[in-house]
Amino acid sequence: MALLVQKYGGTSVGTVEKILGVAQKIKAFREKGDDLVIVVSAMSGETNRMLALANSITAEPSIREMDVLLTTGEQTTIALLSMALNDAGCPAVSYTGGQVKILTDSSHGKARIREIDESNIKADLAAGKVVVVAGFQGVDEQGNITTLGRGGSDTTGVALAAALKADECQIYTDVDGVYTTDPRVVTNARRMEKVTFEEMLEMASLGSKVLQIRAVEFAGKYNVPLRVLHSVKEGPGTLITVEDNSQMEQPIISGIAFNRDEAKLTILGVPDIPGVASRILGPISAINVEVDMIVQNVGQDNTTDFTFTVNRTEYDKAKKALDLVCIDLGAREVIGDNSIVKVSIVGVGMRSHAGVASKMFDTLARESINILMISTSEIKISVVVDEKYLELAVRSLHTEFDLDADA
Amino acid sequence: MALLVQKYGGTSVGTVEKILGVAQKIKAFREKGDDLVIVVSAMSGETNRMLALANSITAEPSIREMDVLLTTGEQTTIALLSMALNDAGCPAVSYTGGQVKILTDSSHGKARIREIDESNIKADLAAGKVVVVAGFQGVDEQGNITTLGRGGSDTTGVALAAALKADECQIYTDVDGVYTTDPRVVTNARRMEKVTFEEMLEMASLGSKVLQIRAVEFAGKYNVPLRVLHSVKEGPGTLITVEDNSQMEQPIISGIAFNRDEAKLTILGVPDIPGVASRILGPISAINVEVDMIVQNVGQDNTTDFTFTVNRTEYDKAKKALDLVCIDLGAREVIGDNSIVKVSIVGVGMRSHAGVASKMFDTLARESINILMISTSEIKISVVVDEKYLELAVRSLHTEFDLDADA
Repeated sequence: MALLVQKYGGTSVGTVEKILGVAQKIKAFREKGDDLVIVVSAMSGETNRMLALANSITAEPSIREMDVLLTTGEQTTIALLSMALNDAGCPAVSYTGGQVKILTDSSHGKARIREIDESNIKADLAAGKVVVVAGFQGVDEQGNITTLGRGGSDTTGVALAAALKADECQIYTDVDGVYTTDPRVVTNARRMEKVTFEEMLEMASLGSKVLQIRAVEFAGKYNVPLRVLHSVKEGPGTLITVEDNSQMEQPIISGIAFNRDEAKLTILGVPDIPGVASRILGPISAINVEVDMIVQNVGQDNTTDFTFTVNRTEYDKAKKALDLVCIDLGAREVIGDNSIVKVSIVGVGMRSHAGVASKMFDTLARESINILMISTSEIKISVVVDEKYLELAVRSLHTEFDLDADA
Repeated sequence: MALLVQKYGGTSVGTVEKILGVAQKIKAFREKGDDLVIVVSAMSGETNRMLALANSITAEPSIREMDVLLTTGEQTTIALLSMALNDAGCPAVSYTGGQVKILTDSSHGKARIREIDESNIKADLAAGKVVVVAGFQGVDEQGNITTLGRGGSDTTGVALAAALKADECQIYTDVDGVYTTDPRVVTNARRMEKVTFEEMLEMASLGSKVLQIRAVEFAGKYNVPLRVLHSVKEGPGTLITVEDNSQMEQPIISGIAFNRDEAKLTILGVPDIPGVASRILGPISAINVEVDMIVQNVGQDNTTDFTFTVNRTEYDKAKKALDLVCIDLGAREVIGDNSIVKVSIVGVGMRSHAGVASKMFDTLARESINILMISTSEIKISVVVDEKYLELAVRSLHTEFDLDADA
């Protein structure tokens, strides 16, 4: 008999019909003998409805009161799902974050979990009940209602699984697992049976559509086996867990991630003196533009060329700031390109295999794809290429690294 | 500097605009220097929306989970009103019932308040904040969310006023006070400046449109001065308080109450033996029909005639049950009338004035109104008359007992 924490997101509980469907699914699990703790989000649309209400009161709502307002969303879902379960003959009891209690710090809107009191939940599980917990919410020391911020329900699920020492935390979504790459780009992309926490984090650009990065980090830290499954379709999904060294034939790379929303900016002929990087990136960070890849090349005549990528929507803003930096530093000029993409190969197998980078570059060269930037980490190699090559790059790498599903 | 508890019902906070209006009103009170605790209901329509949601899940929702669901309504209002107050430069902080905490028994849907912890509220008041409390809700010893049942927000207001020893509990409504009778029937009905708790209770048929009886009982028990006011229009409203013996010229009666929803049933020729009343009313109570007035007359030949009134909507149901009782008891026959009304005069002045009843009967006789039943209590005399005489009876009594407003 396993103890499972299952999380159902807003889309999975978005209508009364879907809630009734989830209740039937939970009942079937219960009848197999598993103990179940269910974490739910607000019904899809509810959060936006409440944000609109708050914004019609004031443009700058009190953050404390915003949390009081938003948490009614999950409270509604836990009540409806528990009603549905009880009605289906599956005894269930609901808990708000405060009732659990999930103790957080006092950072309204982005609180961090400090401690979970698992005693009441354990007693209800022992009494044979399904426990339904409101995701995304907690209380601080003073009893103020807090929320965990975006994707907080995933984090609630993982934190509860850690506190209860659950056998698995299962995240039900609208996809049936994590794929070797985006199936819309490579039709024979393969669902991974297993992936490590590290790989999942490095595949953020794929993974973020499925799981909040914060929940993956949390699961990795507390070593909570995390499984992504489809909320309606049957199937084993993808298990995210620690590295499995017992596996003899580990693939060298696990997946191909990519990001279409990139733009790059280069400042040419920067005097090559200490502190120049911070003088370039300081003003960019000051206007709240996040920088992704950074590459610095040696140039001519004691100057250097400095290139970085930003989100495409922030290209114009960043360009303007960089033009001022250019004058300030006496650099030659600023050039940019907002039609580039990033393609990455990710895999823990890289650590023990030489020649992965050159295999990647060879593959791209064979397809005449020009590499504009390169950046590497221990388990990931990223290249920037012109956006027109995205599909070709991903498909050829997917084949070359033996990721294609069997025909 | 007074401490006031103000309660705003669902209609008063039914839209964002109305919430903003209430915030301005509260701010003006605050600027006069009063300390304020505000109790609010769910926005009008919200409770019905949630009941519909629950009923689309199951015809018989778990009562525990129903309370979890319904309490999101007031939680939404406290958040929005607190946002509006803070935005208007009037520091405010919201409290759910559990956060206060308002400790109740565990009777979900109709819980009774056991104890209120006033310490946190007092600290926030001392810090200069307006405290906004969710009405209608509490928590039991185990931390389960409970609701107080119909009109529970009035009760929350009175209970908080009692716990905080407030100077007054002000109930804001859509009427500007309690009237000597229904102004739709008597156009020159007069708003009462003051009325006693007892009179208010006896005028249930008028008062229930304004205040929940339970809140009046509660206020009477703890001697909390209660004031009914209009939520938008200015005015002193009506103060409900203990009997004021200092008033020299107390009016003999305070108001005329009436009820259009009555029907009467008579069982004729019942053997006049002990226990017959319970053999008649037992089966009526068994089918959950509530009985209002009861009159038993001596009949002929050791038999008696037994008459009682019920709500008109339950007339047919009660008639059927009584027909069976008639056979069972060997009574002569059952007759009934579902086109009658009840008219009552109410006033603590009755206690010290003789001849009030005969004055009432004289007045009705002068108008040729036939009295079908009479029932009296210490501060109320009720008569049942044919429904066609309702307006005539109320108007003539209103004039005769000097209740008409000055022309």
